Order: sequence, then structure tokens, then C-alpha cells
Amino acid sequence: MKILILGAAGMIGRKLLDHLAEQGTISGVPITGAVLHDVVETTPPAAMPFPVEVLASDYAAPGGGERLIATRPDIIFHLASIVSGEAEARFEEGYRINLDGTRALYEAIRAVPGYVPRLVYTSSLAVFGAPFPEVVDDDYLTAPASSYGVQKVIAELLLADYSRKGFLDGVAIRLPTICVRPGRPNAALSGFISGIIREPLNGLEADLPVDDDLRVWIASPRAAVGYLVHAASLDTAPLGARRSLNMPGVSVTIGDEIEALRRRAGDAAVNLIRRRPDPAVARVVGGWPRNFTAARAHALGFAGDRDFEAILDAYIEDDFRPAGA
Amino acid sequence: MKILILGAAGMIGRKLLDHLAEQGTISGVPITGAVLHDVVETTPPAAMPFPVEVLASDYAAPGGGERLIATRPDIIFHLASIVSGEAEARFEEGYRINLDGTRALYEAIRAVPGYVPRLVYTSSLAVFGAPFPEVVDDDYLTAPASSYGVQKVIAELLLADYSRKGFLDGVAIRLPTICVRPGRPNAALSGFISGIIREPLNGLEADLPVDDDLRVWIASPRAAVGYLVHAASLDTAPLGARRSLNMPGVSVTIGDEIEALRRRAGDAAVNLIRRRPDPAVARVVGGWPRNFTAARAHALGFAGDRDFEAILDAYIEDDFRPAGA
Repeated sequence: MKILILGAAGMIGRKLLDHLAEQGTISGVPITGAVLHDVVETTPPAAMPFPVEVLASDYAAPGGGERLIATRPDIIFHLASIVSGEAEARFEEGYRINLDGTRALYEAIRAVPGYVPRLVYTSSLAVFGAPFPEVVDDDYLTAPASSYGVQKVIAELLLADYSRKGFLDGVAIRLPTICVRPGRPNAALSGFISGIIREPLNGLEADLPVDDDLRVWIASPRAAVGYLVHAASLDTAPLGARRSLNMPGVSVTIGDEIEALRRRAGDAAVNLIRRRPDPAVARVVGGWPRNFTAARAHALGFAGDRDFEAILDAYIEDDFRPAGA
Repeated sequence: MKILILGAAGMIGRKLLDHLAEQGTISGVPITGAVLHDVVETTPPAAMPFPVEVLASDYAAPGGGERLIATRPDIIFHLASIVSGEAEARFEEGYRINLDGTRALYEAIRAVPGYVPRLVYTSSLAVFGAPFPEVVDDDYLTAPASSYGVQKVIAELLLADYSRKGFLDGVAIRLPTICVRPGRPNAALSGFISGIIREPLNGLEADLPVDDDLRVWIASPRAAVGYLVHAASLDTAPLGARRSLNMPGVSVTIGDEIEALRRRAGDAAVNLIRRRPDPAVARVVGGWPRNFTAARAHALGFAGDRDFEAILDAYIEDDFRPAGA
């Protein structure tokens, strides 16, 4: 079984790659080769149990879709996109990469007779826009509040239509906010959700721009990789025409996060969190959905994190490297 | 105030044009000129109170969007599309006309600095796909069961995003099934919904392919024209990011229609309805939503037909011409 990962150099792409390198299989079927695509060169893990081809290119450029599927991968993980803030700031570029690039990939697949790969598309909470009910169910409308969200919904709709017509076999998974993100702080507005855990565990200060009672919908990187792999091997017949799934997550307040950190690492860690209220950040992040039933995903066997403690443990096991260790 | 009608030669386009020719204004503001576009030449009403330019072209061809807005119309009524069955049979052409043509129009508008026209986009029940609740509310997800429906939702999403960014000022109205359609029977699967009224009133037989208890969501052509005009002059501020509205309609069974026909035209008319069950038609039409709250549209002042009797009366007043009269 051959695979293709778009966005292989990103955080989730890299975690997925590490997982697949370790397993060597998806659902018991051996992986016989992988194409790793990103806009930059992906550095694969040192020991890969299958041959790997690294591609670095603008996949939305003419002919990009055809090049990506030249090996006729059986499973395509599509994690590539321009992020939310950039899609908002660069209107044309956001549509070119997130919409036109994705559509060109679907079209390249459609053009190959008899080729019907599984395509796992990573979508986002950004497909939803306020107002929401306290708990969002699987029938709630997608009314995005950003260009990025619109591009994600359109890619989902096209995926469903191309699947319905038998051109490909798609599953779109809407990931919660990923927490705890490893690595250095980044510029994302949601960065503090991971930062107030990761930085204090590493003995560093972290800014908290919102109130303790802000509720967020999160999943660990480990859970996200699990969702991708499950979506790759799922029986899609029960999905019918509805190929987009809200993934399971954990609904926690910032206060819940802080108390979990206190239990794990003590007051000294918690004291590294600096309260720096930022009404602009609070307004944007406060406009995101806070809780989901994810009932269809649960019924289809997608299994998430048990609770925030489990998310914290996953970070410590997978990514935490004590200073000097 | 200048206007542009895309799809001016179609049934609703023509009814809108007749109405505007009669009024000479929209919401009290005089119309000073109209561009009438369709893929065929539109024949305007004999007496027009404002200058009219007729354009016949493929609006999705390169440069099509720019040509349409050359006069900088203040209000654009976008009624043009490839119909559902054709979009299903001709995949590429459906996307080219319904998606790419519409997007090119939006892009042409965005390219003109300071030009922010009102754009009224006619959408459809086809944005919804089974299963539904018995009554669909304004928060229900759009999960289309056809390529046409996908193209309509995407055009809605782009309209909302271009509106949010201030490039245009859009309103998408999702029309119920139009009944009673005037003219000759057409090939639409839903044709019988109008046919079982129109044909018997004209002394002709009509086939009924479904059971009497099938429930449908309908509006008269007169109501549809009212929705278009109201959408053209509506204050869009209360819409927020959600620019798509389920229009009011009347939820009736085929049996309700038949009994209204009997009260109006007697048993002789009803006896012209021939029961010719067609499971394929019953399956498709039975998969359409049957009832809506249309709560937002009502709150925004969109006023529909009172009941099926009013729909029947509207047909008789507006379109019925007794044989030999």
C-alpha cells in the first residue's frame, strides 16, 4: 500500500510520519512506499521501514495535482494549507492554496480512470461560526467566520461530491484545537492554550490573554494521529453522502488546564503563567465552538483523549524533554 | 439605480422583469437602466419605463464577469444556472457554469475599487440532503445530495465571504419549489407538482408519479419575485456573517393540492389527473425537505403565500388564459 502525505513537514504531518514509520502498516496492511510533500523539504525519520520520496513544491501550481499522484498512492493524507491568519491577510493566496490547490488534486484523481484512492482531508473547527449552541451536534450548519473556514468547507463539499460520484473515497475530519503543541511558541492566536502548559513544564513563563472560564475544544497530537489513521482505514459505506465528521475532543476551561498543571507540576509551574488580558484574542478565541457531541465519529470508532490529564500525559510521554536531559 | 439580471430569459427572470417594468422602481428608487443577460437573447416586455441592454453570452467564458458589470449595476439579480439534472449529467459543465462562472462574477466585482453592489443570489432546497427533521430550521446543515446542490452551497459560501470582506453586499435566498409554474410541462422531476394543477385547469391530462401523502415545500412565482425584490432592498446589517436565508413557503401534500383543485375547478378537473406511480421519481422527490421554519426570513420581512389556495389564485390571476379567450 502506497501513501502520500501533503503537509508532511508540519507538526501533525511529522507526528503521523513518525507513527507510520514505527508501525510500518495501516490497519495491518504493510506500507510499501510514501511520498512526502510539503512546500519545504520534509526530513523523514532516520529509520524508515519503507521507501520514501520527498517532494518540495507549490502543489497549487499548474500540474501540481498530477505530480502528487504520479505513484498512484492508495491513501492520501491531505494536511496542507495556508493557516487561518494568513488566509485572512492574503485573500487571493488563501483561495489559491486552500481551495484551488485542493480542487486541482481532486481533479487530477478524477482524470485517472479506475483510480479511486482513500483521501483523508483535515478540516477544522473554523468551518463553524458564532452563534452556536453550548454543545454543537453533527447536524449544525457550517457558517464560517473567516476565509480559511470558507475554504475548508468548500474542500469538504467537493470531497463529498467527488466521493458520491465515485471519483475518490473521501473522509474529512474536523480536528479540535491541538493541545499540547510541542516546540516553540508560535504566532497563532490559540497558542496560549498549549503555551500555558508547555512553557511552565519547561521552566519558562507563558502569557495568558483570556479569563480562566474560557472553554475550549481540544485534542492531543497523539489523538489527531489516531484519527488520521482510523479515517484512512474506515469503512466509508456508513458515511453516506455526509463525508465530514466532527472529531472527538475534550471540552475544558483554561482554569481546568491550570489545575491539572498544578497537580502535575506544582504551584511553581502555575506561577509561571502571567495574566496578560488581551481583549482582541479573547474575542476571537471566545467566538470558537466550545463543545461537540461528535456522536457520529464516536459511533464510527474514532477514539479521543480520555480527559485533560490524559492530554497532559501524552505531551509528557511524547514530547517533553526536561532541560539538561 | 441600475440593475443587472443574470438568467433574465428564464421563467422567474421574466416574471421579475415584468414586475420591475410595471413598478419602474425598487423600494421607491427609480430604475434608470437594466442589463438583461442570459445564454439566449432575452425579449423584454413591450413597454419598458427604463433603458434596457440585452446581452446573450456564456457568462462563465473568460472575461464574462467583467462584461456583465461594465455598467456598474447597483443591484445584481443572479438567477443563472445549469439545472440540477444537467449538472448531474455533465459534471464539468455544471462546475464551470454554476461555480466558476459565479466566482468569476464575484471576482470581477472585487477587482473594481469602491464598487460594492447588492448581489441577490437565488439558491435552492438542493443545498439540503436527507435525512432531515420533519421541519428544517435555520441552523440545519447543508449536506447536498447532488453536484448542483454542492455548487449552490459553494456559491453561497463565497457570497458570504466576499460580503464579510466588503467586496460586495450579498443575500442568498433559497427558494422553495416553484408552483404553479406557467407554460408547457418540462422535464424536471418536480414538474408534476405544478402539472397536476396547471394541466387540468387547461382541460389537459396530467401524470402523477407519487402518492397523495407526499409533502412538498412550495412558493408561487409571485412570491419568488417578491423575495427577490425584498432581498434587493433589505438592510443587510442584521444578517451578520450568515447571508443565506431559507425563504418562506407552504408545506402541502399532493392530496392537499388535489382537494384545492377540486374546490376551484370541480371533479372534472381532478379526473384529468392520471395516477402513474414512478418509484424513481418518488424516491428523488421524497428525499427533498418538506417543511421549514424560515424564521429568519420571516423576521426580516420576507412575506410568502398564505396557503395553497392563494398559490392557486396567484396562478389563475397571473398566468391562466382560458382556451379560446
